Amino acid sequence: MAERLYHVDGELRPRSEATVSVEDRGFRYGDGAFETMRAYGGAVFEWAAHVDRLEATCEAIGLDHGLSRGDLRERIDETLAANDLLDAYVRLSITRGVQPGKLTPGPAVDPTVVVVAKPLPRGGLSGEAIWADDGPAALETVRTRRVPDEAIPAGAKTHNYLNGILARRELHDADEALVRDGEGYVAEGATSNVFFVTGEGVRTPTTDGPVLPGITRRVVMELAEEAEIPIEEGYYEPAAIREAEEVFLTNTTWEVRPVRTVDGIDREVGPVTELLARLYDERVETACY
Amino acid sequence: MAERLYHVDGELRPRSEATVSVEDRGFRYGDGAFETMRAYGGAVFEWAAHVDRLEATCEAIGLDHGLSRGDLRERIDETLAANDLLDAYVRLSITRGVQPGKLTPGPAVDPTVVVVAKPLPRGGLSGEAIWADDGPAALETVRTRRVPDEAIPAGAKTHNYLNGILARRELHDADEALVRDGEGYVAEGATSNVFFVTGEGVRTPTTDGPVLPGITRRVVMELAEEAEIPIEEGYYEPAAIREAEEVFLTNTTWEVRPVRTVDGIDREVGPVTELLARLYDERVETACY
Repeated sequence: MAERLYHVDGELRPRSEATVSVEDRGFRYGDGAFETMRAYGGAVFEWAAHVDRLEATCEAIGLDHGLSRGDLRERIDETLAANDLLDAYVRLSITRGVQPGKLTPGPAVDPTVVVVAKPLPRGGLSGEAIWADDGPAALETVRTRRVPDEAIPAGAKTHNYLNGILARRELHDADEALVRDGEGYVAEGATSNVFFVTGEGVRTPTTDGPVLPGITRRVVMELAEEAEIPIEEGYYEPAAIREAEEVFLTNTTWEVRPVRTVDGIDREVGPVTELLARLYDERVETACY
Repeated sequence: MAERLYHVDGELRPRSEATVSVEDRGFRYGDGAFETMRAYGGAVFEWAAHVDRLEATCEAIGLDHGLSRGDLRERIDETLAANDLLDAYVRLSITRGVQPGKLTPGPAVDPTVVVVAKPLPRGGLSGEAIWADDGPAALETVRTRRVPDEAIPAGAKTHNYLNGILARRELHDADEALVRDGEGYVAEGATSNVFFVTGEGVRTPTTDGPVLPGITRRVVMELAEEAEIPIEEGYYEPAAIREAEEVFLTNTTWEVRPVRTVDGIDREVGPVTELLARLYDERVETACY
């Protein structure tokens, strides 16, 4: 099998030659923005939302990369085409590139742009979800707290991901960490947004707290509204999640992933989760095929 | 002039070929530990303290790299020798390397080890400090707050450096940010520890707060004690720094750097700062020559 091709700084390179300088600020400091996307049938789902958030991240860290949306999209499309990929995981990163060895960013930016793509079978209405081998998630409350907005804005999706790594490393027998903010309210998973279902409807932590504004989260909220399921954002304690009727996680890769245990307490995969997962699959179907 | 040589994964490579994979966890997540050191006359100052702290960082992030101290030191010595460097800046990084594309670190680590070295004139008793061209520092209180220990331990010196970058980006007409913790107490600069002098002695924020245990900081505290200058660690508000008689910053590169303004308020470089800077130069002299 031929080596996969990645897009690095404007050209396609075999995976083994897809590298960045050790002086790249992305490597030295995690000084870069990224998005994880999924392509279904060759089309990037929610591209506009991803590129909007990428721009918000770049704005938050002051990264003026000077590249158009069309240029970024072209690099993704070239990468998908070069690897004959229709259903794929796509990661687009932009860093501040190599600059003289000072922490303070210089004004002249020669950004590093990287597109990594891998096959990711579609799943969807007839197939299996990407997490099917592992099954619904086991969720565990961890001691590591979410970085507060006043230190690094949670809306910025950057290469500084150690907070999530530390949270994941605490897990004993679980797939995802339930990470609280400094006040003890549930913020999110290490790589996912958290939803739960009570007798009154669907609940999810507000992005007024240190919570990434997930794109799958936003789509699921829209789907709930369209289905006339009451949905509310707020501040919730872990006990509310533990006592909920249903719990599920969302992110681009997992889509809607049910939770089978919270801090060791078992629960069933419930009807609201199943409905929203199906509506999500239908949304992908409509948007990409 | 020949290209500088960097040490990457066990071999010396010309700077232009000193690269890491775009899939390296150091690039993807800032998932790595580092130390910045200075060599004086070919000897790494405070090597034992740097390698101790590197180990503490690796412990904090669970990076079991499997390399001996002797091996790490050898890579540094090889890099210095290959570049004919006696007085140098040295940056040693260890990342968790390339792993399958999951945030949760896998147990099997093939670490990436990078040594970057550059000439850095000595300064010392007879020469000029490295910051001489810029002069004493201008310090400015910023809105960005230090990442709390409960999110990422401040004792870990990692490639997640965006918090400091955001702090530096706020500066208007200053060299260094005065960064507070979540409660409003002074923590540190973006890349330096902060000291100030009152009629009662020398003061510096305690590492009980989210403050990097700087090695230059520790040496300066020892020097103050030896010189019988009272020194105290504690929680201080920015007003205490603004009203102090003298203020100075420490880090490995700057050594002891006086501060000439705090939030626009001018001050003189005072005698205590000058004494400690001279004692530091003498300590380097004794240790490395």
